[in-house]
Amino acid sequence: MTEAPEAAQFRWRASCEWVNGTHSRSTITDFFGLGEEQKHKQAFTFEADHPEIFASEDHGATPVEIVLAGLASCLTAGVASVAQNRGIQLRSVKATVEAGMDIQGILGIDSEVRNGFDGINVRYEIDADATKEDIEAVVAQSQKRSAVYDVITNPTNVTVEVA
Amino acid sequence: MTEAPEAAQFRWRASCEWVNGTHSRSTITDFFGLGEEQKHKQAFTFEADHPEIFASEDHGATPVEIVLAGLASCLTAGVASVAQNRGIQLRSVKATVEAGMDIQGILGIDSEVRNGFDGINVRYEIDADATKEDIEAVVAQSQKRSAVYDVITNPTNVTVEVA
Repeated sequence: MTEAPEAAQFRWRASCEWVNGTHSRSTITDFFGLGEEQKHKQAFTFEADHPEIFASEDHGATPVEIVLAGLASCLTAGVASVAQNRGIQLRSVKATVEAGMDIQGILGIDSEVRNGFDGINVRYEIDADATKEDIEAVVAQSQKRSAVYDVITNPTNVTVEVA
Repeated sequence: MTEAPEAAQFRWRASCEWVNGTHSRSTITDFFGLGEEQKHKQAFTFEADHPEIFASEDHGATPVEIVLAGLASCLTAGVASVAQNRGIQLRSVKATVEAGMDIQGILGIDSEVRNGFDGINVRYEIDADATKEDIEAVVAQSQKRSAVYDVITNPTNVTVEVA
């Protein structure tokens, strides 16, 4: 890839169809990378909805929870990859993610309150054939190379258009 | 909620267990809001993995794709809610999301390249009982109140710790 940097240009995709109320279904099937169209072995679908306390039907996870799952899974894949590279045998890895949100933002009650999270905490419990220091170094390296960690901690431009 | 702003303090959660390789399973069951612990009607699980071209087994969506599903579903729930508030009858709503990424960032080949997306485009196809202008106004309002749109377009602090 250092000799063919165009192979490194990826395009990730999802499509989302409204079902009813706040319920939607997102589907992930294909992406572009290594210079050509790529297909997953199967389609992956994600149901999303709002909970009943928001007068919705709770047919799926809340979209903000889906983002937390994306963050946790990105960091966890990184922990596994870095551990393997360093010859560390993992026995179990569990991440617990919690994110605060003042929903006065999304409800439009207080314009000073942001719509998104006021912060996210990820806490790892890792059982591995390594010292605490080595495990902490694996987690730090995963964080340093994580795509989703970067997407959340730094601004990304999003354009929204109507066909 | 304007009279009891403490009810607006939510805590959203996900847990993630490593399965093997880059494969993990995230589970969403509960959150805190309206001053007390809340439970979803059922647990929602999300399989994540890396694709085969990354020498993984493609047992689930790539974490960055999961984030795109979170963005699409958040904006789509907003479109549905705003349309309902405005008395607009939706017939179909479909969002197509695409995000570019130069993976020289996550691979550590070029430190000038960011790990995350270089930008995201969301394209809506909406069939509704409304003019194009009214539909565009619905999408714009959804974007203005979207939690995930805010999380992605603005920086959010993430702390990662090892127990």
